[in-house]
Amino acid sequence: MELSGSIFRQLQKISGKQYVTREKEELLCYSYDATGNSFLPDAIIFPGSENEVTQILRLASKEKLIVVPRGSGSGMTGGAIPVKGGLVLVTSRMDKISDIDENNFLVRVQPGAIVSNIHRCVEEKGLFYPPDPASSSICTIGGNIGECAGGPRAVKYGVTRDYVLGLRAVLVSGEVIQTGVSTAKGVAGYDLTRLIVGSEGTLAVVTEITLKLLPLPETVKTMAVFFDSMQKAARTVSRIMKEAAVPRCVEYIDEACLDLVKDSLSFDLPENIKALLILELDGDFNTVEKDAENIKKMCFSFGAQDVLVAKDLKEAQKLWDARKALSPLLYKIAPNKINEDIVVPIDKIPDMVQVTQEIQKSSGLKVVSFGHAGDGNIHCNIMYHKANKNESKRAEKAVEALFNATLNLGGTITGEHGVGMTKLKYLPREIGATQIELMKGIKKVFDPQNILNPDKIFH
Amino acid sequence: MELSGSIFRQLQKISGKQYVTREKEELLCYSYDATGNSFLPDAIIFPGSENEVTQILRLASKEKLIVVPRGSGSGMTGGAIPVKGGLVLVTSRMDKISDIDENNFLVRVQPGAIVSNIHRCVEEKGLFYPPDPASSSICTIGGNIGECAGGPRAVKYGVTRDYVLGLRAVLVSGEVIQTGVSTAKGVAGYDLTRLIVGSEGTLAVVTEITLKLLPLPETVKTMAVFFDSMQKAARTVSRIMKEAAVPRCVEYIDEACLDLVKDSLSFDLPENIKALLILELDGDFNTVEKDAENIKKMCFSFGAQDVLVAKDLKEAQKLWDARKALSPLLYKIAPNKINEDIVVPIDKIPDMVQVTQEIQKSSGLKVVSFGHAGDGNIHCNIMYHKANKNESKRAEKAVEALFNATLNLGGTITGEHGVGMTKLKYLPREIGATQIELMKGIKKVFDPQNILNPDKIFH
Repeated sequence: MELSGSIFRQLQKISGKQYVTREKEELLCYSYDATGNSFLPDAIIFPGSENEVTQILRLASKEKLIVVPRGSGSGMTGGAIPVKGGLVLVTSRMDKISDIDENNFLVRVQPGAIVSNIHRCVEEKGLFYPPDPASSSICTIGGNIGECAGGPRAVKYGVTRDYVLGLRAVLVSGEVIQTGVSTAKGVAGYDLTRLIVGSEGTLAVVTEITLKLLPLPETVKTMAVFFDSMQKAARTVSRIMKEAAVPRCVEYIDEACLDLVKDSLSFDLPENIKALLILELDGDFNTVEKDAENIKKMCFSFGAQDVLVAKDLKEAQKLWDARKALSPLLYKIAPNKINEDIVVPIDKIPDMVQVTQEIQKSSGLKVVSFGHAGDGNIHCNIMYHKANKNESKRAEKAVEALFNATLNLGGTITGEHGVGMTKLKYLPREIGATQIELMKGIKKVFDPQNILNPDKIFH
Repeated sequence: MELSGSIFRQLQKISGKQYVTREKEELLCYSYDATGNSFLPDAIIFPGSENEVTQILRLASKEKLIVVPRGSGSGMTGGAIPVKGGLVLVTSRMDKISDIDENNFLVRVQPGAIVSNIHRCVEEKGLFYPPDPASSSICTIGGNIGECAGGPRAVKYGVTRDYVLGLRAVLVSGEVIQTGVSTAKGVAGYDLTRLIVGSEGTLAVVTEITLKLLPLPETVKTMAVFFDSMQKAARTVSRIMKEAAVPRCVEYIDEACLDLVKDSLSFDLPENIKALLILELDGDFNTVEKDAENIKKMCFSFGAQDVLVAKDLKEAQKLWDARKALSPLLYKIAPNKINEDIVVPIDKIPDMVQVTQEIQKSSGLKVVSFGHAGDGNIHCNIMYHKANKNESKRAEKAVEALFNATLNLGGTITGEHGVGMTKLKYLPREIGATQIELMKGIKKVFDPQNILNPDKIFH
């Protein structure tokens, strides 16, 4: 239903006039995310506390008002886009990082906390929160929970799901639940914590997260490895992943991507380079030194042209800055992109490289790839002009071909970006109608009126 | 409803006459688990394939027949006990271990596979499946999935949940779903995989599990550390857990337990020992050597009487055999026990030790503890004579006191045993009525007639 003046005034009463708006300019700002898709909400609210969230959801339930939770809007599948209008609930004011617990290795954070702030705060105390999506300097932990974000360190350390011990969340009824534990283990009933992680804000509004931390590794070593063929790079990755000393990051950048970032690197690229691997090891000093030597040798034996080891943190940071800048830089190639974060079994990466090259040929569109090769998670970008109907059609066909090949290779259509609105129509192909029906049933248990971020994951 | 002759014959037709029984002796054998509780089923079936499971559940749905999935019956909370009768579905014939994939680090197993067989098969290929509950030589992976089993290595490697990439499962409708992925990452829709893990056979019957594997560590070092006070041992654990080099096991055995196993150890216990820690490190040879030295020093600085390092695998195995034999050996103290696998934050272990000593005093019952100190997961055993009404009452009161203290310390009433029937009445105290209602709603989505292992976790 539409947002009436009366509802708007009640929202103002809940969070204060300065924290509720329906100015056109503001609505526009909160209408889109990193996909570039845009749907206008009816209003935006910035609650300051769990208590306000409770009141908002109670009101929304009463008035059948759609509520779409939102972090920084850096999502890649439209998870935070209000496709059916309604109220966008922005978590930016709820950004506390508290109770950093060095004895029990945990921290409590509010959903609006920026991920890199969490990193900084816990690292100051010798602790470590591994997940580090490329957008970590702007994205919120709430968004990371919604999509189960990954990032380059997932190779060794796993994804967001693996670090969420427990959640406080508000249901549409306004009731607050506290799921999970503050301990290392816990199996008290169904795993609602991990059900909410990755549910893209469709089940409840998370208001506090208890994150598991690790001791900060003693040292980190970052390497750039150059190849004159993508196949060689892909085969090297397969080989490296069979070692007991798994690097914490095994990133892959193809030739087209290298072209975009080469000027911002701290070194000159050797001639005729078609692929770059970024490898990063962590652990205690001696082990990392030894493992780095082993891996260097392995890279050369698989045909690497050269291996550069970052001299210091600054040099390593420059390499990562280049890698993290890639996603937005791609718009230099074409004004629109479809970014699919497919995953294939590690030993199928060389086949996947082949597939993307074939799709590039058959579609006549530039298809560029980079991503988390170490866990088979490739960000495959199909570049096109949306305004050009013919290109749009070819791009759509390219996505179809990409997903079909991914599923045929035993992979998944989304490793860490979620389904949101952009992959919704492809989801049944991967998981089938029966699972979708179960998910819809679960959605109904949590949100019988379908007011919480509707038309995401499934219709 | 009762199991009629007609239904029995249909079951015989599905799995073959030799695999369905209602002989009284057999019913008795499948009526109980490690809790000692016993409820007679109406019949038992041993299906040989997913297809048979499908037919059984279809028939059960049509006839409103209760079905209780069961592995080896080594559960600690009555998860596999047919409290309302019905058909016990034993997975022992479905025990295949296949597709050990050294390139992608995974294996596919059927639910009846014995966990130690999985260990053996993958280790032969240089791979590693970390979860190792004390009952691993007899328990099935299906049971481990049902309860989200842990075991000593969880300190470093996590629990069953962390190694389940995907599942095949049969719904009560007979439909088969394939959840999760065969890749390192995946977020395609709600996390049904982890919803089913730990659901104690109440949502679906799992027929195949894709497990994530790791490279087998180069070496393992096992140590026994002796203390003249439980408090000293508990404080040492807190300290060790703050190191970057976390041991893979940090087990704790109190004085009463030591008494039970001392004769089977390969060494003489020093005088006046009140607590034993078993520490185990793994990794590459040099690192493990160095870390072991560090930890040894740390133990002495926290007041250890002595530290023994196992000379070889055989000596280490003897230590583990003693530890794993503890649970059944406790019956030497009293004919009945209540075994609660509470978890507290690591730095609250000394407080918990205090609490158990106080409960022992106030109840007048022997309260003995051992368990996974490294993650705060203590198996606290209240020993009593069930036939003695007065002792039974005191035991019940002791459990109440134990759970209250656990929750007050920020802990959970179950780390790895699940809720089953024995903790059902205590669950609301930990997670509240709202979460229980959500769980009931989810149960209804999967099993609208409530025929799959009813009256477990909640009524």
